[in-house]
Amino acid sequence: MRCVVVGGVAGGMSFAARARRLDESAEIIVLERGPYVSFANCGLPYYVGGEIEDRSKLLVQTPASLAASLNLDVRTGHNVIGVNPDDHEITVEHDGVQHTMSYDRLILSPGAAAIRPDIDGLDASTRVFTLRSVDDAIGIRGAVESGMRRAVVLGAGFIGIEAAEALRMMGLETTIVELAPHVLPPLDDEQASLVTDELTRLGIAVRSGAGATSIVPGTDSDTVILTDGTEIDADIIVLSVGVRPDTAFLDSSGIERERGAIIIDEHGRTSLGDVYAVGDATISTDPITGVRRPVALAGPANRAGRLVADHVMRPDTARPIPQPLGTSIVRVGALTAAMTGANRRALGAAGIPFHTLHLHPAQHAGYFPGASQIHLTVHIGNDGRILGAQAVGADGVDKRIDVLATTIRNGAHVGDLIDLDLSYSPPYGQAKDAVNLAGMVGTNVLDGTLRLWYAEDLETVSETALILDVRNAAEVATGMLPHALHIPHTELRERLDEVIEAAAGRPVRVMCASGVRSAIAHRVLTQAGFDSASLSGGILTLRAVLGERAAAALPQMQNV
Amino acid sequence: MRCVVVGGVAGGMSFAARARRLDESAEIIVLERGPYVSFANCGLPYYVGGEIEDRSKLLVQTPASLAASLNLDVRTGHNVIGVNPDDHEITVEHDGVQHTMSYDRLILSPGAAAIRPDIDGLDASTRVFTLRSVDDAIGIRGAVESGMRRAVVLGAGFIGIEAAEALRMMGLETTIVELAPHVLPPLDDEQASLVTDELTRLGIAVRSGAGATSIVPGTDSDTVILTDGTEIDADIIVLSVGVRPDTAFLDSSGIERERGAIIIDEHGRTSLGDVYAVGDATISTDPITGVRRPVALAGPANRAGRLVADHVMRPDTARPIPQPLGTSIVRVGALTAAMTGANRRALGAAGIPFHTLHLHPAQHAGYFPGASQIHLTVHIGNDGRILGAQAVGADGVDKRIDVLATTIRNGAHVGDLIDLDLSYSPPYGQAKDAVNLAGMVGTNVLDGTLRLWYAEDLETVSETALILDVRNAAEVATGMLPHALHIPHTELRERLDEVIEAAAGRPVRVMCASGVRSAIAHRVLTQAGFDSASLSGGILTLRAVLGERAAAALPQMQNV
Repeated sequence: MRCVVVGGVAGGMSFAARARRLDESAEIIVLERGPYVSFANCGLPYYVGGEIEDRSKLLVQTPASLAASLNLDVRTGHNVIGVNPDDHEITVEHDGVQHTMSYDRLILSPGAAAIRPDIDGLDASTRVFTLRSVDDAIGIRGAVESGMRRAVVLGAGFIGIEAAEALRMMGLETTIVELAPHVLPPLDDEQASLVTDELTRLGIAVRSGAGATSIVPGTDSDTVILTDGTEIDADIIVLSVGVRPDTAFLDSSGIERERGAIIIDEHGRTSLGDVYAVGDATISTDPITGVRRPVALAGPANRAGRLVADHVMRPDTARPIPQPLGTSIVRVGALTAAMTGANRRALGAAGIPFHTLHLHPAQHAGYFPGASQIHLTVHIGNDGRILGAQAVGADGVDKRIDVLATTIRNGAHVGDLIDLDLSYSPPYGQAKDAVNLAGMVGTNVLDGTLRLWYAEDLETVSETALILDVRNAAEVATGMLPHALHIPHTELRERLDEVIEAAAGRPVRVMCASGVRSAIAHRVLTQAGFDSASLSGGILTLRAVLGERAAAALPQMQNV
Repeated sequence: MRCVVVGGVAGGMSFAARARRLDESAEIIVLERGPYVSFANCGLPYYVGGEIEDRSKLLVQTPASLAASLNLDVRTGHNVIGVNPDDHEITVEHDGVQHTMSYDRLILSPGAAAIRPDIDGLDASTRVFTLRSVDDAIGIRGAVESGMRRAVVLGAGFIGIEAAEALRMMGLETTIVELAPHVLPPLDDEQASLVTDELTRLGIAVRSGAGATSIVPGTDSDTVILTDGTEIDADIIVLSVGVRPDTAFLDSSGIERERGAIIIDEHGRTSLGDVYAVGDATISTDPITGVRRPVALAGPANRAGRLVADHVMRPDTARPIPQPLGTSIVRVGALTAAMTGANRRALGAAGIPFHTLHLHPAQHAGYFPGASQIHLTVHIGNDGRILGAQAVGADGVDKRIDVLATTIRNGAHVGDLIDLDLSYSPPYGQAKDAVNLAGMVGTNVLDGTLRLWYAEDLETVSETALILDVRNAAEVATGMLPHALHIPHTELRERLDEVIEAAAGRPVRVMCASGVRSAIAHRVLTQAGFDSASLSGGILTLRAVLGERAAAALPQMQNV
């Protein structure tokens, strides 16, 4: 059997390696358009930033090593330009010459290409780079090392953030521009706000809610002009506004696609017999919202390639390819930001009712040196289903998101998080881990023990309710919301009369720094007959939600 | 309702805090024998070692802070010496005076006490300390700072390991003595071997397979005499050979116990009406093996305390207390060792058939700086059930064990590990994470794609099979098993004739450094008709299993 693989990275190469291990007799040909296979695409920004010093580290395998180890016939510089399913044949271009090649099974792993938005002067500029290939990375690092001083990164998704940090690490004045209201659009506002703060701390200028309209060439540099009229001079411009399935070569093949992405079934089969597809170029269904979209992530691509090989070689027993949750993670300076499942916007768009939990637990015992907060958001359904989670913090973020991703994948509910037996000793966690706490808060919300109010409703709440600040005196001395009543939670039981008087029949909305003490106060109040609720995530979340507006909207809280 | 809690740490205090949040009207009295409540027991070794500098950090709460925040009546120095269930009454000793106290609900959280083994001279020595209380920790640190030079730690469980490292960090010559064949007895041999190596690297003398028979007092120091006759002079001796439920005060209560541990149902109810128990003093059932044993861990105790409060206050809706998996973790120098579920010995004793998987994947992308191996062991049942997992490594160990503990708790199987959408970018993981890989190897073993042989069978295998070493020439130049045939895996397909000749009808047992290349070679061989198997975990595991015997048994492999 001849298996022909189109694309020699991630999904395609995972297919080839697994197929060989399952069948020594198969002929396995991997065609890669570029000069390299199995290269470290996720490592490219770190090469640009100098953390990966040697470019040879980016080349994990070579055609020769793959031939020796796995008897694969890997051909670089081979560009597949057409598929003829009737003849089980593809057309390949190599060194300017076209030829055809037959296949028994065809595995398409063409990946995604960088989107080039409609910006005047973009194509004419010689200073614009994308960051998708080894040569891109070598080009950018070479340009940087040749003495460039000013960089503009267009697009603040994962690669844009990584590129901006890399350029900044190399000493460039760096501006990152994002059309969406905040950086890392897949994050919820309050988490993205923390990332923006960290980018700023790194010395990166963040321009969100703005796009580039044109690039004006100059002698020593280009000028990037933004939608708000701002002009930024740049010696180098990195374009990272997103990717699209790189499937134009399939236009006349008859393979069914959806907005360019190849439609596949649970074993990776396309609409054509004997043709499979994996990776960034395929469409999948969000297991939370049901939305169909391509997911451009290395993990799902690699695992899908392996499962497609199972189906090609052992169709009767192959495990189906799971729908990717889109778990993802990025390092931003000293912080980590990670997410799994759906965000607030996706849940809203899908019409799925949900509660959001905000927690700020320490990653390990508070009394052990180096304790730092994990800013954790968990969205849960009314039935307790975990719909999504996000976290930002200096340490332990990846662990909690992975545990939550595992829980979502396993179909467990928020209450099950209480029972997780996670490893605890002071350097690693707490006896009640952040994830356990999310389960406890979540069940409290679902059964009515805890009622939350949210920072985004501050304006309405301010107008209709008494805001009760239960922090201690030292904390409120640094700033407090206007018109709020201050009673430390430790004095609340004795001072309920003051609450009755100040509320004057209005509901009481409690707040503290992180939401722990206000939850205790809420329990006191609700059992005393008040209409009460506790601010989800406390002032930490309030400040993150308000972002730059916090200082303006809440002048008395500037130092909180 | 009056709730009386016996024991003001972990489970007891978790009960009290949750009970108050659920019911403002309850009278909640916490009786603690010692001078402190809610102290950081897991932090005590780190205070001894100076990492936690200030002793005040160990005192997380005080009776006054708990009264103010949660309206709890916390009484230290109150020793409960008897329970009279007929009258719903307990007998309490305080300041040498006995009195009785009635209860509506009694919550027993007495914890565990240090076992004092039968060692001549133990009780007479003034140099022997345990490490269970704040005063213990203060006493040891005081003694150390008074100029002691030589320490012996008896018992190499979690606390013993932490204590030994703490004493070594304070500059003492430190010996750790363990009766079991290796340190950290809950670990499997090959993992414990790595911990022993690290202790040795820290400069701690490890004496496993040896116990103390007597302690001979001297003027300036004591002498600890071991079962093998060794004499070790010690200025300070830390006793950490284990704990037992501290339940003697219940002897005449009629509460049913099992080897001292209180028997409870799924809501923490004892055999007496209105009496509950939580924590180290209770018995639970191992969810993997079905063995009944007390578990002395902070996490399960804390979570059980909370769930008991749910049952006391809301009996109709309370969530049952889960059976603890015993997930645990310890820092040892630059390493972390962690485990969840059952180990090999427990599975053998329970008669549960299992396969063991050994993997040594990097914690993050190999091309990213700082990559280090996680030495991972996973035990799986014939049905794919994950029975237990252990890991040792410099980084990322806690995350993988937590993901595996979550998977076990959720009832997922080894194949489900393939599908986990874990967060990946180069600083955090690999596109196929260590946990995904465990799922892949596990399903390969279960469906027969991969057949393993184990390092502990080396002797038999050496006598009955051809051992084929498929590492490269540079690797075998540093040492190779006697009589093994060397063919690099990259040359195997062309050199099968040599294998046929050398095997001369015997089975072929393949090995490489970590088990990856030997698995590829196994697939080549088995498809070519050989009776083949791949060494689980490769030479890395082989060396760890053989431990100190490696150099003696395998002279040619000293430098491997």
